[in-house]
Amino acid sequence: MASVPVNELKQHIGKQVELRGWLYNRRGSGKLLFLQFRDGTGLVQVVVGKADVPEPVFETARRIGNESSIIITGLVKEDTRSSLGVEVQASDLHVIQEVHDYPIQITEDVPNIDKLLDQRHLWVRSRRPHAILRVRSEVIQAIRDFYYNKGYVLFDAPMFTPASCEGTSTLFEVPYFDSTAYLSQSGQLYGEAGAMAFGKVVVFGPTFRAEKSKTRRHLTEFWMVEPEVAFLELDGVMDLAEEQVRYVVGRALERCKEDLKVLQRDTTLLEQVARPFPRVSYDDVQVLLQKLKAEYAASSDPELQKLAKDILKGGLGDDLGAADETAIGLHFKQCVMIHRYPRHVKAFYMKKDPQNAERALCVDVIAPEGVGEIIGGSQREDSLEELLSQIEKHKIPMESINWFVDLRRYGSVPHGGFGMGVERCVQWITGCQHVRETIPFPRTIYRLNP
Amino acid sequence: MASVPVNELKQHIGKQVELRGWLYNRRGSGKLLFLQFRDGTGLVQVVVGKADVPEPVFETARRIGNESSIIITGLVKEDTRSSLGVEVQASDLHVIQEVHDYPIQITEDVPNIDKLLDQRHLWVRSRRPHAILRVRSEVIQAIRDFYYNKGYVLFDAPMFTPASCEGTSTLFEVPYFDSTAYLSQSGQLYGEAGAMAFGKVVVFGPTFRAEKSKTRRHLTEFWMVEPEVAFLELDGVMDLAEEQVRYVVGRALERCKEDLKVLQRDTTLLEQVARPFPRVSYDDVQVLLQKLKAEYAASSDPELQKLAKDILKGGLGDDLGAADETAIGLHFKQCVMIHRYPRHVKAFYMKKDPQNAERALCVDVIAPEGVGEIIGGSQREDSLEELLSQIEKHKIPMESINWFVDLRRYGSVPHGGFGMGVERCVQWITGCQHVRETIPFPRTIYRLNP
Repeated sequence: MASVPVNELKQHIGKQVELRGWLYNRRGSGKLLFLQFRDGTGLVQVVVGKADVPEPVFETARRIGNESSIIITGLVKEDTRSSLGVEVQASDLHVIQEVHDYPIQITEDVPNIDKLLDQRHLWVRSRRPHAILRVRSEVIQAIRDFYYNKGYVLFDAPMFTPASCEGTSTLFEVPYFDSTAYLSQSGQLYGEAGAMAFGKVVVFGPTFRAEKSKTRRHLTEFWMVEPEVAFLELDGVMDLAEEQVRYVVGRALERCKEDLKVLQRDTTLLEQVARPFPRVSYDDVQVLLQKLKAEYAASSDPELQKLAKDILKGGLGDDLGAADETAIGLHFKQCVMIHRYPRHVKAFYMKKDPQNAERALCVDVIAPEGVGEIIGGSQREDSLEELLSQIEKHKIPMESINWFVDLRRYGSVPHGGFGMGVERCVQWITGCQHVRETIPFPRTIYRLNP
Repeated sequence: MASVPVNELKQHIGKQVELRGWLYNRRGSGKLLFLQFRDGTGLVQVVVGKADVPEPVFETARRIGNESSIIITGLVKEDTRSSLGVEVQASDLHVIQEVHDYPIQITEDVPNIDKLLDQRHLWVRSRRPHAILRVRSEVIQAIRDFYYNKGYVLFDAPMFTPASCEGTSTLFEVPYFDSTAYLSQSGQLYGEAGAMAFGKVVVFGPTFRAEKSKTRRHLTEFWMVEPEVAFLELDGVMDLAEEQVRYVVGRALERCKEDLKVLQRDTTLLEQVARPFPRVSYDDVQVLLQKLKAEYAASSDPELQKLAKDILKGGLGDDLGAADETAIGLHFKQCVMIHRYPRHVKAFYMKKDPQNAERALCVDVIAPEGVGEIIGGSQREDSLEELLSQIEKHKIPMESINWFVDLRRYGSVPHGGFGMGVERCVQWITGCQHVRETIPFPRTIYRLNP
């Protein structure tokens, strides 16, 4: 008998099947045992009746501990109470490995994330991480499909880079034979070389930041997708970001229904991505934030009062803080695109707004529900003179950036792109508190194991 | 007028269009100029007739150097001599940036790879690297589609790992806050944790090796795809490897026809992947190699005579060398799967052959045409006792591997998988001599720039 995966059982109602996998949990009593059986594709209830199996099989089913590896033979029966639509009536059970001391309790799925992360290699079997990581897998394939179907060429940027262009405080240094390499913080500069060669490229790989702060929003190692397009100006960058977010969230909503249900995710606000994303200038957002600050301060909700205190903490003309982004999300209840930030808070390669030399032709996409920035992008500075002056101003060593400047010497054209952190996006879609839950083996300042 | 990408021009025959991109090359004389125009999606010939454009436009078209960025307006005409099926009759030409000293000559595409790699950020615009990297992009999407469509969960392994399990001589060490991390050489051990959780997973990301030898086959940073499947035994591993290689090569042959033509790739042997891959045991291969060694030594072809000398250089019972793999490829003219190597030349985690304790349940896939090993895989040791004894024998520190051993303590099941290096696969498909050409920015012991 060929074995059947749990997620295909519905096609075998009325038939005898073999199931191969693990005991997830068990309840029941003297005469009837209910095994929750998992094989990685889903969970199904297996009923073991004392009258239906030989005595030693019933004893085994009663004795074995969670995560014992087992092979079950049984009859697939329709069961409308189950989300799967079926249950299995066991006629035999064979143990591959009997387990009695599995270190993770089924009930402790959320409470102590640090303790569970110590057992991450086992914890990924539990329902919650299982669901989150299935969403991650879908999100990444959705991103890859989105760009592939639009004719983008995948253009992998190197992990080892000769020097940093954006400050060295969060750089990982690697002894590289007789020299030193730095782990990439972004593939964008390389992506720009790709855009000049292929027109439309997407860089997608791990990036590294030596984040010393331990927050629920930071990892030292995370995946970033970075499209870069020749002849794409700021409005086009915003169109692309909106279309990509809508496609990715749409795919997750459509294909990860069961996983989002396991996570008890209220998808009301996620479904709003189908509506146009408001596009608000940084200057208009400052006005709005002042209004929201006053409004929340006067509110009777203590959480809003607390938030009000932190709004515009950085002061006018500064970058937006977490509280500002939270307030914007609360107000719009939808993804918002904030464009034209002050140049001095943004990267050297962003193009100067021709209407206002103090502003950059850039955009951040802010997700609601307290998630904050998920995308940062811009039109790039395509003027050789302007770029050189920015490089000087930011004190970037010319020998490390000269190749990049070549892109403005040999056929410079207007172009733009953005970067989206995959984990932040998955965090938003799954409603996780901690970004650490959105990657199989999270790395932070305090965590390099397992 | 909206601009049209070169690869869509055929749908606009008889129409006026705008083209945005770069001058790739030019020939022509006093009255008629033929511009090779590129925009990243393709190359098209643009005819500029002195009689058809204003005098200053003709002068500009005659003056500007390669890689000048330009916007051309013109009429799309059918041209059966072109592989694109069209050419463009220019009526106007606007220069965005005029270039006169582009450092790469069109004709020097192959000769001096080291010099060209110094200009990799520009060289990627040339026809040959352009074609190779488009094949790479297709190969990677094909791999991702293959696993996604078969229900595999993408399970990204970490780049930062706490310790090595396979010797430290080729490991990159990274100072990691107050500790030391090592850059991943393989995601497989993590993939095994994934297989126990999801049944079928695929790990796909960069891996790192501090390769001190400068050969045409090695990079310090390369991408690897590593499927891992619960309840998959050696025969199943071979079935999966065969199916995956066949799918990926088939996609490239189908969708990269033009690129392979640019590369002048003779695809005769590539098309053989549709035939079953011979499955030969290591022991049978030894017999075959002795026969081939004698046969080639007696040949009148000096290259075969030379190869004969290197066959079985390692001696009987040793791992296969490059010459052995080349001879096997020459003999079978097809991918070959060699299984059951001696345990002592393979990794500690490979399962002992129950028929012969000296052999491992492993397989290497050898590609023809001198490419050699593209895949290494195995059934994994699922016995706790055997694994512990291997760990002791290989002197692997228990504190670094204990989490992995947990996978044999808590519901161990038979399982297996393999790893395929993306660059080696692209090298084979494109027929490149150097693996360095198969990744946008190759990294070797001597190359960290640009």
